[in-house]
Amino acid sequence: MKHTISALVENYSGVLSRISGLFSARGFNINSLTVGETEDPTVSRMTIVVDGDERTLEQVKKQLNKLIDVITVHDLTKTRFIDRELILIKVAVESPKDRCEIIEIAGNMKADVVDLGSQTITVEAAGDTPAIDKLVGSLRQFGIKEIVRTGKIAMSLDPMEKAQKTPKEEEE
Amino acid sequence: MKHTISALVENYSGVLSRISGLFSARGFNINSLTVGETEDPTVSRMTIVVDGDERTLEQVKKQLNKLIDVITVHDLTKTRFIDRELILIKVAVESPKDRCEIIEIAGNMKADVVDLGSQTITVEAAGDTPAIDKLVGSLRQFGIKEIVRTGKIAMSLDPMEKAQKTPKEEEE
Repeated sequence: MKHTISALVENYSGVLSRISGLFSARGFNINSLTVGETEDPTVSRMTIVVDGDERTLEQVKKQLNKLIDVITVHDLTKTRFIDRELILIKVAVESPKDRCEIIEIAGNMKADVVDLGSQTITVEAAGDTPAIDKLVGSLRQFGIKEIVRTGKIAMSLDPMEKAQKTPKEEEE
Repeated sequence: MKHTISALVENYSGVLSRISGLFSARGFNINSLTVGETEDPTVSRMTIVVDGDERTLEQVKKQLNKLIDVITVHDLTKTRFIDRELILIKVAVESPKDRCEIIEIAGNMKADVVDLGSQTITVEAAGDTPAIDKLVGSLRQFGIKEIVRTGKIAMSLDPMEKAQKTPKEEEE
């Protein structure tokens, strides 16, 4: 089963290595991982999507909580949450007809054209994974030159999930 | 100086730990890191933004290239490239007036409202870092409950940057 883990961590050199090492030591494969800034420059938020059984994941969560750099850890999988990712796709353009069609597909699928090259078009889109996969599927016919995807970020929408907030974020 | 590194890596358990360990051993602080899927399920693309001097970074790049899990490594900083990130922001709503104002700010700044709670509004936005920072700045007055940001993803727009493409992506 896929689990979406959200963790607040101290922004020190080495914390990422320790956390990812903890997952790999247990044989969990990380599907995606993002580390981004928060309002506090000393704190980062990690979103990790992993495949694994409930029991082993419970152990990993306990070990994460023991790490001194880890402030909070949550498995969002059982809460009401939203997840999103971002993609940049560079598509081959071989004719003016291709160009029009790619721009039209992008427009229909809420993607933005961010660069028009002589032989490529680069588009950007944000959405949930099925929407992003559908966009990639629609553009594949033209020839995909390059794809860069962020991993997923996720946020609990459950108002009871008070622990999601750090004291630092509440001060804002 | 900030460097934006784009690397294609084998999608094995442990590769992230080895790569992040390599940066932390040299004292580089990772500003942001994303690992996302590519068209090939056995290959992931990492985008890493790090602060550090040119010479030490050159050494890190060399060591990355030596890792068996690393397929290609590029420092995009000197090419023409685009970078983007994605943010989810949960904002406090204390009155109907707040609600209207937040929705208006989101609309003006190309952000989408993704959840309307009884006491919060959650918005999503994609853009370059200055645009995202500006949105956060505009919403701060209402009280920010939670922020989740992906790290940056980046793509070279230079048609000469042939090495950016892997043989696998060219087959598409």
